[in-house]
Amino acid sequence: MTLKVGVIGTGMIGRDHIRRLTEVVSGAEVVAVNDANEVSAKEVASGLPNATVHATGEDLIADDRVDAVIVCSWGPTHEQYVLASIAAGKPVFCEKPLATTTEACRNIIDAEVASGKRLVQVGFMRRYDAPYRALKRAIDSGAVGAPLIYYSGHRNPSVPEHYTKDMAIVDTAVHDFDVTRWLLGEELTTIRVQAAKPNSHGGELQDPLLMTLETERGVLVQVETSVNIRYGYDIRGEVVGEDGTAALADTGQVVLRTSNSVGVRVPEDWRERFIAAYDVEFQEWINEVVAGTGLTGPSSWDGYAAQVVCDAGVKALYSGERVQIELATKPGLYS
Amino acid sequence: MTLKVGVIGTGMIGRDHIRRLTEVVSGAEVVAVNDANEVSAKEVASGLPNATVHATGEDLIADDRVDAVIVCSWGPTHEQYVLASIAAGKPVFCEKPLATTTEACRNIIDAEVASGKRLVQVGFMRRYDAPYRALKRAIDSGAVGAPLIYYSGHRNPSVPEHYTKDMAIVDTAVHDFDVTRWLLGEELTTIRVQAAKPNSHGGELQDPLLMTLETERGVLVQVETSVNIRYGYDIRGEVVGEDGTAALADTGQVVLRTSNSVGVRVPEDWRERFIAAYDVEFQEWINEVVAGTGLTGPSSWDGYAAQVVCDAGVKALYSGERVQIELATKPGLYS
Amino acid sequence: MTLKVGVIGTGMIGRDHIRRLTEVVSGAEVVAVNDANEVSAKEVASGLPNATVHATGEDLIADDRVDAVIVCSWGPTHEQYVLASIAAGKPVFCEKPLATTTEACRNIIDAEVASGKRLVQVGFMRRYDAPYRALKRAIDSGAVGAPLIYYSGHRNPSVPEHYTKDMAIVDTAVHDFDVTRWLLGEELTTIRVQAAKPNSHGGELQDPLLMTLETERGVLVQVETSVNIRYGYDIRGEVVGEDGTAALADTGQVVLRTSNSVGVRVPEDWRERFIAAYDVEFQEWINEVVAGTGLTGPSSWDGYAAQVVCDAGVKALYSGERVQIELATKPGLYS
Amino acid sequence: MTLKVGVIGTGMIGRDHIRRLTEVVSGAEVVAVNDANEVSAKEVASGLPNATVHATGEDLIADDRVDAVIVCSWGPTHEQYVLASIAAGKPVFCEKPLATTTEACRNIIDAEVASGKRLVQVGFMRRYDAPYRALKRAIDSGAVGAPLIYYSGHRNPSVPEHYTKDMAIVDTAVHDFDVTRWLLGEELTTIRVQAAKPNSHGGELQDPLLMTLETERGVLVQVETSVNIRYGYDIRGEVVGEDGTAALADTGQVVLRTSNSVGVRVPEDWRERFIAAYDVEFQEWINEVVAGTGLTGPSSWDGYAAQVVCDAGVKALYSGERVQIELATKPGLYS
Repeated sequence: MTLKVGVIGTGMIGRDHIRRLTEVVSGAEVVAVNDANEVSAKEVASGLPNATVHATGEDLIADDRVDAVIVCSWGPTHEQYVLASIAAGKPVFCEKPLATTTEACRNIIDAEVASGKRLVQVGFMRRYDAPYRALKRAIDSGAVGAPLIYYSGHRNPSVPEHYTKDMAIVDTAVHDFDVTRWLLGEELTTIRVQAAKPNSHGGELQDPLLMTLETERGVLVQVETSVNIRYGYDIRGEVVGEDGTAALADTGQVVLRTSNSVGVRVPEDWRERFIAAYDVEFQEWINEVVAGTGLTGPSSWDGYAAQVVCDAGVKALYSGERVQIELATKPGLYS
Repeated sequence: MTLKVGVIGTGMIGRDHIRRLTEVVSGAEVVAVNDANEVSAKEVASGLPNATVHATGEDLIADDRVDAVIVCSWGPTHEQYVLASIAAGKPVFCEKPLATTTEACRNIIDAEVASGKRLVQVGFMRRYDAPYRALKRAIDSGAVGAPLIYYSGHRNPSVPEHYTKDMAIVDTAVHDFDVTRWLLGEELTTIRVQAAKPNSHGGELQDPLLMTLETERGVLVQVETSVNIRYGYDIRGEVVGEDGTAALADTGQVVLRTSNSVGVRVPEDWRERFIAAYDVEFQEWINEVVAGTGLTGPSSWDGYAAQVVCDAGVKALYSGERVQIELATKPGLYS
Repeated sequence: MTLKVGVIGTGMIGRDHIRRLTEVVSGAEVVAVNDANEVSAKEVASGLPNATVHATGEDLIADDRVDAVIVCSWGPTHEQYVLASIAAGKPVFCEKPLATTTEACRNIIDAEVASGKRLVQVGFMRRYDAPYRALKRAIDSGAVGAPLIYYSGHRNPSVPEHYTKDMAIVDTAVHDFDVTRWLLGEELTTIRVQAAKPNSHGGELQDPLLMTLETERGVLVQVETSVNIRYGYDIRGEVVGEDGTAALADTGQVVLRTSNSVGVRVPEDWRERFIAAYDVEFQEWINEVVAGTGLTGPSSWDGYAAQVVCDAGVKALYSGERVQIELATKPGLYS
Repeated sequence: MTLKVGVIGTGMIGRDHIRRLTEVVSGAEVVAVNDANEVSAKEVASGLPNATVHATGEDLIADDRVDAVIVCSWGPTHEQYVLASIAAGKPVFCEKPLATTTEACRNIIDAEVASGKRLVQVGFMRRYDAPYRALKRAIDSGAVGAPLIYYSGHRNPSVPEHYTKDMAIVDTAVHDFDVTRWLLGEELTTIRVQAAKPNSHGGELQDPLLMTLETERGVLVQVETSVNIRYGYDIRGEVVGEDGTAALADTGQVVLRTSNSVGVRVPEDWRERFIAAYDVEFQEWINEVVAGTGLTGPSSWDGYAAQVVCDAGVKALYSGERVQIELATKPGLYS
């Protein structure tokens, strides 16, 4: 059975997912598209054998041919499309963020809980990255004992001009927050944010930042964001356990011996580092939707929890204080 | 457009490819199967939504619904099915070996050349492995200068009881031969084989072997087969150039610090090491067949050349002498 | 010229230094020893060709044959012997700590400043470790740009029964404090200490600890002490700069491929890791004393500064607050 | 007791050893020097507190103040000075080669055997290199099982103009031959030499060379000399055993993450790589001579065996054939 998918949002990320669904992964077909910019939607549809252009996201969701929805539109519109998909009883894959406010995330959770089953998946693709999965397996295997500290490093060579202070938290560290919750299998409870001596490549930006978080069981989490560090896009992660440590290995595939150095390549950007994770993310989502056995990927709850951590993080950034991360009670649907 | 595929041979490897075509890669559907063991073929077909069982491989090839053929049957039958596919003008993916004798390989080349276009692809999956591709890119980039020596290491933890002396060459080193030709972009011209002190885990087997080959331009190639080396399935490759060297990196994705050691995992077997390469191999084959723009994967010529190197290698193994590798003139179709 | 040395304290560390002076490094001879336990002193002297046993440390310092003094006695006695050496105008190498209170350290500084020249060196041997020196060269070369963050990891497989909460700071992290000051070339200004989820191997101990310090120029310093982490004695250090990072490499000298793993050895204890550093430390001290061109190793000021950081660290450990590190004005002698 | 040493040959290597004996290692004093160039000898002596200049090497050897002799003169003179030292019953450290002909080596062996005890040590410093020693320990520990293959790689960035074809064997690979014999604890029995496609940086030189040797027990040894490979001075070694492999690790001490690469430094030249090995070599020689318990370093036999392998290697280089390495019966003194 081929899953018939409608895609809301045909910008850069939407187009990339459509390419993925069409040429890379198995079992899905894009049958409907929509974008605030109709020209863009039509352009994309013209390259697909069998896709209708809808005037609104809601029309697309209502289309009987559409089995499942993918939301890649502008963040502030996510809430309405996800809610409409839930209302229509259709599985919906929503790019991060799930929504731009905590309240909107709660609305989605409420609606999904009322629907009685998981319909929403959020696009935290790191959970589908092979090295992160290997790290999770290593932790879960007990090879290093119970985790006590987790170091998460998020390094970008540079950021665009419009990148603001808050974005280090809500756009950059949000991935570290989610992947930490997933790796450790517990919630984050407090956050403190400190700015290091600023990197002169970053102009007025407070960069790098060092964030210290705690989890329910007392694991200390250290998140570094260095977004102007020139040398590459480098995602680091190391869990310190009772008996040893486990860390993401470097991803370079060729050892070069040149110019008095021996080493491997560091990725240039997130595409090079995570491109394969997106493929796996969609393949597994399609397979789970088609099988009808329930979604196991990042849920509305995960989207909500990430949002709450981000809110606390921004507060901590401005106050310099340790800020509590207060989550609502977790509905049984997500346990 | 979905490529409709018929699969001849529903043993272990055939079933794995059917799974791959059905669940992993995009753009293909298995519509016909055949096996010498009809029970096996029927069992496999029953798990597919839309597949016919054919009494013979030739029937399957003749089926109008079949756009392209995959041959996974017993080696000695490869020639007939590949020839029949060429006769039918249908693209055919043949698992290695292309055929079991040099003469049979030449028959296939002759038929394909007569047909006027490339229809045959041979299953040398290493060319689709990400680390090998990164190695080829590194060589081609000139980062280490012109290649002068290539070391290829093929290590297996163990081999089955029926593994014979010749198999170190025709079953094991054949992959090294093909990938060397591809990495360096030139033919092998001589081979010498030496047995080291035998590994006691290998019983009477002459293992490890060290093979020294030369290429057209004088590159020395060293192939080590160690097929009882216990520690893991470890595929090594290092090109020594004029200015530096480039080597396959270790593939472990997690750095473990435990028990006074820091390191990464070595794969257990070929599945763990090359599973992803098979996926890419089939996805690219499907895409090229569908696009109709011509095949770029390992050709009949590559299958033939590997066979000739193997024949020379076996001769060298028994004689202890350096043996010439004599290839026919390469038809223009393969240049 | 051979430097004639007197050694106060003939316990484990004193005996090791005497062995080093006698058998390993060049240019020194042990001519006098003293220990609170006279039996121990006599035992050691009996193994030396030419050494007198003195009843007191002061007698040893006063001995005309003694050119320079090495203090390896119990910490609380360091102050008196160092002061007596300064009074005698003799160079003195004092094992860490320089003294056990800030006030004692200041007394030493005052006396040394009054003497008009540097006579005191403190035993912070990491500054003589080849990997740390290579790290300092890398930082100073500008290869990674200006330092912004420094991570220092201090991991021990286990600690003795008598190891207390404070010792993680005053015995363990003190090395990280000193080496950080040296690597970055600036003073530490604040410290905060957080306990992670406790390692169950450590019983009641608060272990691991994560300390966050700041430097004068705003570099953030993260010190991890994990003193029950079983897997080995592992000293980590990574400076994050504006353009890249530089880190201590693993020190294993042999890559082992065994049991599905490829990796190198992690040291078992501090001896294995730092034995060579002690040799270099003493050779350079001897050379500098003999040359009379002035000492360049860790000074009284360094001993004092480390003590002040430790005091602040202990306060921070108990309060949970960020504590200021208040240093006196640095005398010109140490600039 | 201080060992009083006379040094014959005050060129570059002689001066470096004098510096080493005077400033680095413990327990020796240079009391006599000689050089064919008297001006050089006097210059060196003037920097030493207590050294006589002798008109001839023989005079130096005869000097009663001289306990032990170090020979760093021109190769063809080694034989006479080593024989004179043996005749005088004095321990002699001879830089490699022991002598320039097999016959001369045998003369030395005969004289030493006649003297009844080991007096001669040859300057194969690799046996004192920490990574090689760690490799030998790993082999001897049985961690990888019995050795079956040994790969030895000797890479130089460039060689001087006067470097000839034979020197790749007698000057370069000679170190690999000795260290292989030592690591494996057995003699080499055959050698074959093949030239790869020549490195264009090497002009007319046959470079790189690939040599295949066999040992008494059938271990295959592969020696690569690449002496124009630009990227660095890189000494590689990997033993392939029955259960795994052990290899020299890279020696860089700092991991740099810069410019889309992560890696460590490769040495620039042999000084950077082996400087510490020379220190250990002399310290252990001094200690053994002073202790009078017998020499354990590379012996006359080792110097002789290396010479025989070199002779066979040069023959193999010109003939292209496999050449037998024929050793005399080993006197009991060396077992």
